[in-house]
Amino acid sequence: MAAKESETALATQDEEKGKDAEGSKWYTDTVLQSELADYSPVKGCMVIRPYGYALWENIQRPLDGMIKDTGHQNAYFPMFIPESFLQKEKEHVEGFAPECAVVTHGGGKKLEEPLIVRPTSETIINHMFAKWVQSWRDLPLLINQWANVVRWEMRTRLFLRTTEFLWQEGHTAHATEKEAEEEAYKMLMVYKDLAENWLALPVLTGQKTDNERFRGAVRTYCIEAMMRDGKALQAGTSHYLGQNFAVAFDIKFQNQEGVLEHAYQTSWGVSTRLVGAVVMGHGDAKGLVLPPKIAPVQVVIVPIYKSDEEKATVFERCSKIAAELKEAGIRVNFDNREQHTPGFKFNHWEQKGVPVRLNIGPKDVAKNVVEIARRDNGEKTRDVSQDGLAKTIADLLVTVQKAIFDKALAHRTANTVNVNSYDEFKKVLEEKYCFIEAYWAGSSEDELKIKEETKATIRTIPFDQKDASGKCFYTGKPATQKAIFAIAY
Amino acid sequence: MAAKESETALATQDEEKGKDAEGSKWYTDTVLQSELADYSPVKGCMVIRPYGYALWENIQRPLDGMIKDTGHQNAYFPMFIPESFLQKEKEHVEGFAPECAVVTHGGGKKLEEPLIVRPTSETIINHMFAKWVQSWRDLPLLINQWANVVRWEMRTRLFLRTTEFLWQEGHTAHATEKEAEEEAYKMLMVYKDLAENWLALPVLTGQKTDNERFRGAVRTYCIEAMMRDGKALQAGTSHYLGQNFAVAFDIKFQNQEGVLEHAYQTSWGVSTRLVGAVVMGHGDAKGLVLPPKIAPVQVVIVPIYKSDEEKATVFERCSKIAAELKEAGIRVNFDNREQHTPGFKFNHWEQKGVPVRLNIGPKDVAKNVVEIARRDNGEKTRDVSQDGLAKTIADLLVTVQKAIFDKALAHRTANTVNVNSYDEFKKVLEEKYCFIEAYWAGSSEDELKIKEETKATIRTIPFDQKDASGKCFYTGKPATQKAIFAIAY
Repeated sequence: MAAKESETALATQDEEKGKDAEGSKWYTDTVLQSELADYSPVKGCMVIRPYGYALWENIQRPLDGMIKDTGHQNAYFPMFIPESFLQKEKEHVEGFAPECAVVTHGGGKKLEEPLIVRPTSETIINHMFAKWVQSWRDLPLLINQWANVVRWEMRTRLFLRTTEFLWQEGHTAHATEKEAEEEAYKMLMVYKDLAENWLALPVLTGQKTDNERFRGAVRTYCIEAMMRDGKALQAGTSHYLGQNFAVAFDIKFQNQEGVLEHAYQTSWGVSTRLVGAVVMGHGDAKGLVLPPKIAPVQVVIVPIYKSDEEKATVFERCSKIAAELKEAGIRVNFDNREQHTPGFKFNHWEQKGVPVRLNIGPKDVAKNVVEIARRDNGEKTRDVSQDGLAKTIADLLVTVQKAIFDKALAHRTANTVNVNSYDEFKKVLEEKYCFIEAYWAGSSEDELKIKEETKATIRTIPFDQKDASGKCFYTGKPATQKAIFAIAY
Repeated sequence: MAAKESETALATQDEEKGKDAEGSKWYTDTVLQSELADYSPVKGCMVIRPYGYALWENIQRPLDGMIKDTGHQNAYFPMFIPESFLQKEKEHVEGFAPECAVVTHGGGKKLEEPLIVRPTSETIINHMFAKWVQSWRDLPLLINQWANVVRWEMRTRLFLRTTEFLWQEGHTAHATEKEAEEEAYKMLMVYKDLAENWLALPVLTGQKTDNERFRGAVRTYCIEAMMRDGKALQAGTSHYLGQNFAVAFDIKFQNQEGVLEHAYQTSWGVSTRLVGAVVMGHGDAKGLVLPPKIAPVQVVIVPIYKSDEEKATVFERCSKIAAELKEAGIRVNFDNREQHTPGFKFNHWEQKGVPVRLNIGPKDVAKNVVEIARRDNGEKTRDVSQDGLAKTIADLLVTVQKAIFDKALAHRTANTVNVNSYDEFKKVLEEKYCFIEAYWAGSSEDELKIKEETKATIRTIPFDQKDASGKCFYTGKPATQKAIFAIAY
């Protein structure tokens, strides 16, 4: 516990210096050195290296299961969208046109109509929905797509903001507003489940203000996480689209009374940005700290030996233990590389955030024990019996998963500040990055002015509004809700 | 057995008419009506609908497992490739440049250098390999990518040839020619395993002639399948690239003797074309015939009833049986739609190729039995006990999987013809589409001339060359190998 506390203090200290450049360097160095990703020769695009992709797969797998368990089916739509399609929903085109990559030539010829590389797929998917939906019996239509998308970004950062990224995008059509609203909320709760129970990242759930709303949506809901430096990261969004796209793309169905009606819709997505959230949400000075449930390697075994004889004995036992752990469904790696010292290996796997390390030397073999080291808090336990080790480790992984979540939650709690005036607001933000909770009754213009002056935006209007009745910190007007402000990635 | 034979005869008769247009219509109708895919508003691109995507996922899953089991790791590289990269391997650019989609504008501005949407990723991946590989200790580098690619096709066909398609592409680098050659062969055998043991499609394995070689490769190996109409379909390829790309992209490593050397490489891929292969390889007049191991729905339960009372009894039992089968890991669907007749449902699920149907009426409930209907041969068995049904069905699915493979193999055997002269060759091809096996010692020019005159190409020079010593059917020269000619998709 001592180790844990001091680390938090250290991290907080770093944050309090407010050294953005330093934090940014830490993030980039960690992503590169842990081999999650690499820069590519294409501006704004990254290469997701095997370790990063395995982490992404470990996020995809549970999410894909949850998406299917809630009745959705995967499908795949063309990544090229005719330019004219984007024009059909007025607000949508305004939002996305400036970020588009445009294909003008194909097969050696200039195209009659340029094709947009999808920045999101509402337009092309809803064009198809219009073809497939005729009757209330065709609803709800619950589709998900795993795909790459492109948004031409000026300032990029590995995983957090890249020109091309990987994501899933859900698109649904319903017979009633109520059902569509429930769907948008349900999928936000799926994202919360994923973030909290798999990524160990506590998230706030709530609604975006109009300024931060998805262009084309009626309402945008979000999950918002706090990073180790106190900044906010939007980790997932779910949109209630109303009939906006249904009107634009003519998705009509005959309802049970025989009357033609436009469908009510939702869309929702999370992306490879979640990998960045895990790095920035849990990492420390030594590198990554990965939650066991998504860690590509949950346990690494490092052999410690001097002579060839010791090596033979230790390797044999390490192999046996690795086999036992693997058999129990634990993702284990026996690091049997002979060109590296144990010290090198300790650093290597700490950098990569492997939750649990087993050190095994000749004495451990003789005593039938191992030494266990936890990555999250640095705790070491000697002389843990090899009998029932798979169970010991499985239990420990559960403990570590919870500890990482608890630490992130404590960090958020410690860095969430209530303010009652704009002066207080500015003073807090000058001191440190944090979540600022405040009564809010301002306008969109007020919000933009605050952003201009402080860089902070309303990250979310939380669903959870206990006793929400007070005075707006900015306008002084009576307010019935609190907003969470922060400086965001 | 009788049903099986007559179907084969029927299919063969159809083929013998050589009605390409009819076969093509059957294919397209089947893909559309079984809801595997739909046309999209983007020329040459298709929409993979949920049923088709589920089939693709059932192909992806085992293949991804085999790729990982053979030591490869997934990663992801940008889909945009700088135009200059494509130029670096001379033959490669000649092969792919005419098929490229080109992004010329991004973020509202004209790009300094146009970006190619990847037609395949050798160039960008090998650029990264050059960065990652320094020493023999970095080898072998065994990478796989699941991705979308774009090749601007003039004549497209759902799944078989589309402008955008989904695939996996393996890219590896090795320290020796021998190891790279073994890798190329090993991955071809993985593809054969997938095709035969999952897709129930017997395939020939062998080498492509120079005319059909991947541009940039030293040698291209392939798996080649026969479709129901006797045409050939290239179902997967594995390339030994030699040092071609390593030289072009400067992938050098210090070998164990301390000398710098270019790496030896492979690449290999299969695509959503495999879904088309399953349709065209097993389908019949009623629609799809899906091998159980990849069928999205393995068993459909159709309730048969008249009165509400019967309905209640039958539905209850159907639900119970569905739960039991699901519990046993069988992908089962209880079709409880009330707006459709059993006859409609029979046709619906036959069209969709569901391997096994259970019909359950009130008398079956009373007698504790079901009626089982097989999709592959139409056989029906009454009064199958509900006791131990999960086991009965699991065994039957294994039987059906084998029967579908055996039927396809028998079809290929029956439609593989040996010829000794070009006259004979032309005569055979006029009669029907088939595989023609013949001694071959011709040149690339000879091969092109045969293609011009008959549309047939050498699909593969099989690895398996028993007693291969004879006279070339075309040139009359002594030949040491047989080639397989066919008209291909």
